[in-house]
Amino acid sequence: MSRLDNVLARIDANLDKSVERLFDLVKIKSISTDPAFKGDCRAAADWLAREMSDFGISASVRDTEGHPMVVGHRAGESKPGPHVLFYGHYDVQPVDPIELWEEDPFAPRIVTRPDGSKVIVARGAADDKGQLMTFLEAARAWIAETGDLPINVSVLLEGEEESGSPSLHPFLEANSEELSCDLALVCDTGMWDAKTPAITTMLRGLVGEEITVTAADKDLHSGMFGGAARNPNHVLAEIIAGLHDSEGRVTLPGFYDGVIEMPDDVKALWDKLGFDHSAFLGGVDLADPAGESDRTALEHIWTRPTCEVNGMWGGYTGAGFKTVIPSKAQAKISFRLVGDQEPEKIREAFRAYVRSKIPADCSVEFAEHGGSPAIRLAFDSPALTKARKVLTDEWNAEAALIGCGGSIPIVGDFKTMLGMDSLLIGFGLDDDQVHSPNEKYNLSSFHGGIRSWARVLDELSKG
Amino acid sequence: MSRLDNVLARIDANLDKSVERLFDLVKIKSISTDPAFKGDCRAAADWLAREMSDFGISASVRDTEGHPMVVGHRAGESKPGPHVLFYGHYDVQPVDPIELWEEDPFAPRIVTRPDGSKVIVARGAADDKGQLMTFLEAARAWIAETGDLPINVSVLLEGEEESGSPSLHPFLEANSEELSCDLALVCDTGMWDAKTPAITTMLRGLVGEEITVTAADKDLHSGMFGGAARNPNHVLAEIIAGLHDSEGRVTLPGFYDGVIEMPDDVKALWDKLGFDHSAFLGGVDLADPAGESDRTALEHIWTRPTCEVNGMWGGYTGAGFKTVIPSKAQAKISFRLVGDQEPEKIREAFRAYVRSKIPADCSVEFAEHGGSPAIRLAFDSPALTKARKVLTDEWNAEAALIGCGGSIPIVGDFKTMLGMDSLLIGFGLDDDQVHSPNEKYNLSSFHGGIRSWARVLDELSKG
Repeated sequence: MSRLDNVLARIDANLDKSVERLFDLVKIKSISTDPAFKGDCRAAADWLAREMSDFGISASVRDTEGHPMVVGHRAGESKPGPHVLFYGHYDVQPVDPIELWEEDPFAPRIVTRPDGSKVIVARGAADDKGQLMTFLEAARAWIAETGDLPINVSVLLEGEEESGSPSLHPFLEANSEELSCDLALVCDTGMWDAKTPAITTMLRGLVGEEITVTAADKDLHSGMFGGAARNPNHVLAEIIAGLHDSEGRVTLPGFYDGVIEMPDDVKALWDKLGFDHSAFLGGVDLADPAGESDRTALEHIWTRPTCEVNGMWGGYTGAGFKTVIPSKAQAKISFRLVGDQEPEKIREAFRAYVRSKIPADCSVEFAEHGGSPAIRLAFDSPALTKARKVLTDEWNAEAALIGCGGSIPIVGDFKTMLGMDSLLIGFGLDDDQVHSPNEKYNLSSFHGGIRSWARVLDELSKG
Repeated sequence: MSRLDNVLARIDANLDKSVERLFDLVKIKSISTDPAFKGDCRAAADWLAREMSDFGISASVRDTEGHPMVVGHRAGESKPGPHVLFYGHYDVQPVDPIELWEEDPFAPRIVTRPDGSKVIVARGAADDKGQLMTFLEAARAWIAETGDLPINVSVLLEGEEESGSPSLHPFLEANSEELSCDLALVCDTGMWDAKTPAITTMLRGLVGEEITVTAADKDLHSGMFGGAARNPNHVLAEIIAGLHDSEGRVTLPGFYDGVIEMPDDVKALWDKLGFDHSAFLGGVDLADPAGESDRTALEHIWTRPTCEVNGMWGGYTGAGFKTVIPSKAQAKISFRLVGDQEPEKIREAFRAYVRSKIPADCSVEFAEHGGSPAIRLAFDSPALTKARKVLTDEWNAEAALIGCGGSIPIVGDFKTMLGMDSLLIGFGLDDDQVHSPNEKYNLSSFHGGIRSWARVLDELSKG
């Protein structure tokens, strides 16, 4: 038997103890957004630092303006492979509405479902306590079995992910030397389905803009002024209507500069995933993909940039009717970015377009709501290739390379502040009910997740 | 001297007494919208019925569910000319913000301005107590001087005009026989300017519609669904943008059916009025007329139909940013109608257009917010011709035939419920500050108004 085989056997033999430890962590009510649980958040950090130090990753609790960070290291010696920084978060969402929980959210238990499968039910069972423990249990098994980890490992566990991460930027900045590694491992995403592991390699970026179109200097009576006075609702509607052409493409000049076509082999993999497009849209009572007409829904949300009006308003919006021509009309508009699209170029193209549509006697103001580029891991990066291989081995199903339509801020921060790419491997499932009552984590996700990380650590140590 | 000359001489000689009587009426705090002034409203009605009965129009106070009506008649004998129904309202607007009044709003006084002109300052001095008293004082002078009125006259004075006239429809319906005359005289409008009398011959109609566009059955995360899921804000913006063409014309098929071009002589009269287009729009910080590009602002608001989005909203409209794709987007849209445009045809054309723009997997709901046709008095109607002549005589300036971009509901009700056209003659001025602090009515408006009605009554009695 190889070292890895021994580690995997140890993981299997000690699964009950791994679950017990997860239960101990889950019982701590570390709800970061509610000040009433400030002490619980620190208790969770203390518990993690103590456990890690006990099994061989030297860890400490670090104070911030908010909830503390936990930082650990087992590194320093010259070892093969990259030095990795593992990231997870120990804080959880609030439990409201509490009456919809079948049991106490902080009394974790294993439930056997009608099909015989077992799930761990509790707040944080999946997001992110269950997920982060897959990595720590894999590291524990490696050290217990072999006396060491196969590569240098640092760990950063955050306590404010569910409440906007206010302390993260200052902490990364103040500790950039300590935390800068060769590669980040992030465990906060999902599998393709219960049998198919996945690596998230693409996260869309975001540009947010708010515009205010002003016509007259006051609201006008549409009887007195209607027809003669400019209506900013009409101006705004024309601006919004002109953002897409009849094929669903965004019309801003240069908008698609930097958008990258997926390689054929990736597209072929996606075809094999058998994404159920009609179920995806049918689940929200829609039928036809709305974006670029020559793309599938999966392409739309993973690989294509978008322009969405998230909010618009002008004039009278209450009950009944008021014959007003408003002075102002406003909209909040966001762009999801992919590939190498540059946020500031998109913003400038948008503003130039809007200005071109403003009548001479009207005006427009812009407010910025953030901008970040898309994140992607090169399909031929060595770490990605290794991870694909071992996940495929572990799950006996070809690992999917998937995208994520939203953004995970920490991944952008690791890239821009610490110069690290991230490998996003997680074992969550669509039905885990994270952020909702009766959150669960499949026991197969927990067990397979520990085994997967054990394999990843091994594989990364190879030449 | 003719009978009319004697009546006019009496009016001049008794102007001080006419002003005193107006003061007595103005002192009564008949604010119809505030229940605290319920007794004052009745006191104003009582005062009017008593005064009218005293000088020779047999009048009574009629109870309604709200504030009472005052109805009077001096009719029945066979007389030449039409039987007219005079309409005015004795209720007034609230006085807030009271701190901006220079004196007690219900302590009427005459103020001499720097140019020597005199104005009556008080709440209701113009709207509509001063205006309705011009007619009653003219009738008083006729009866005092000649023992009778030259034509049959009925009077309807309302006490709820400033609070939505809830009792008017039931009252007109219950008393239609008593109130149906040959012609209504309404005194609640304005002059062209302080030297130029005006008759309002056109009032625009109105069709109100509210639409709700529904895409997904819930709000969606724009990261998870953006690009694939239909955004109802985009659908609504396209609908709104498509309502006008690049020349400002409304695009609905058949929209301009029934729109009437003004006769050349009327247009020529308007040209002579010297309307200051740049001051009209400049006063609200605009410069360029927004409607049909080949029309003047005066045409826009008096003679052209419009489509205005009075309100629109969808998605997140609070502070900050939320990357949501909303389930619904909504708009309140109104059409101002002119000539013979038919409200229900316009509504159907609009709904058909909107339905044609709704994607297959989205839906739209409509809610109706009223519909009324435009009102107009034929330019060659005998009563109009007579009124133009005598107003021109009285003011020594050619009487203007003007439009009104808004609607005056009573005029539509007289037409549809009682079958009467209305002659709208009023003596208000743009700077009267009706509904605002320091409301005033020029003494010249009051005096010239009384003399004008004396002439109108005389002229209408002529074959």
